[in-house]
Amino acid sequence: MTASPRGTRRDRYNADTLVGVAVDVFTARGYDGTSMEDIAAASGITKSSIYHHVRGKEDLLRIALERALDALLLLLDEPGGRDGPAIDRLEYVIRRSIEILAADLSYVTLLVRARGHTGAEQWALQQRRAFDRQIARMVRQAVAEGDLRDDISPGLATRLLFGLVNSLTEWWLPERESPSLLTEQIVRLAFDGLRTR
Amino acid sequence: MTASPRGTRRDRYNADTLVGVAVDVFTARGYDGTSMEDIAAASGITKSSIYHHVRGKEDLLRIALERALDALLLLLDEPGGRDGPAIDRLEYVIRRSIEILAADLSYVTLLVRARGHTGAEQWALQQRRAFDRQIARMVRQAVAEGDLRDDISPGLATRLLFGLVNSLTEWWLPERESPSLLTEQIVRLAFDGLRTR
Repeated sequence: MTASPRGTRRDRYNADTLVGVAVDVFTARGYDGTSMEDIAAASGITKSSIYHHVRGKEDLLRIALERALDALLLLLDEPGGRDGPAIDRLEYVIRRSIEILAADLSYVTLLVRARGHTGAEQWALQQRRAFDRQIARMVRQAVAEGDLRDDISPGLATRLLFGLVNSLTEWWLPERESPSLLTEQIVRLAFDGLRTR
Repeated sequence: MTASPRGTRRDRYNADTLVGVAVDVFTARGYDGTSMEDIAAASGITKSSIYHHVRGKEDLLRIALERALDALLLLLDEPGGRDGPAIDRLEYVIRRSIEILAADLSYVTLLVRARGHTGAEQWALQQRRAFDRQIARMVRQAVAEGDLRDDISPGLATRLLFGLVNSLTEWWLPERESPSLLTEQIVRLAFDGLRTR
């Protein structure tokens, strides 16, 4: 193989696979601490090749946040999230949220860490609030159906449940704890508590 | 009052109060996204005045992380964290952790967000792991004493409990939910679960 100073490494990326590289760099170094040079170095292609696929750094972030949000919002329309007693739907949503988190850990990590510093993050926060409102509605319904205790506020219960799930992005190594083991233990803690009965 | 181009605003800071300003800027913009210029602008004193108190940006971060960690580590030596059945000590530690979080919200937020990007953060992560090991020991003891269920792993229960507490740094406004209300609801969820009995 002969080496040429430019263009030796073929650009095998499309926007989606390039976003995959960017997401790993963002979660490792932080979005603000990442430059387009860092993404070029991690992908092994030039900055100008990257600009062929996306408009810039925020575009990479926006595509990544959309992927995480789409997965979460779609699960509310799955039969398990739509039909049956509210407590079962709530448990379903939590189980599926952990599955999505396991399948797309870096993407969901970016979403959870979004603070609204960019337009893309502000949009993502709005979408997350819409998701939270749907969950809070399920919690209220489960209380009304007598399945959830009525001495916890639905809004607070929603934030705590997803605080618990989202905290996985800080320490979970799916190769150490399997998604199914982790899901069982979280559902047990959240619904039945740690205390022996 | 006559204005002079330099030194008009007196430097009323010491290292601790300056850290307080820096912590608010760090949590709003991210540590990596913050420059010494930003801290100078927020404090209303010059960069050279800041360097009179601290060696630089990482020094400000280190002092802030130390304050949050000291508070957490000290509570393990309080009588409530030291004496009595393990389940009561565990509940005490969670209640006090939330109090510390409420009292020093920006400081604890910085600690929770520390990813090990700087030497100060790496040191803080080590300290947090030491704290977590002490909590895991309490959880194991509470299981052995028959007060906590034995079908959740102590390490996992520890990470989930503190994931729950630490998630408060993402959304809690103490002026909306009082520390005591929030503490009651978290302890209820973690120990007794959301499901009606």
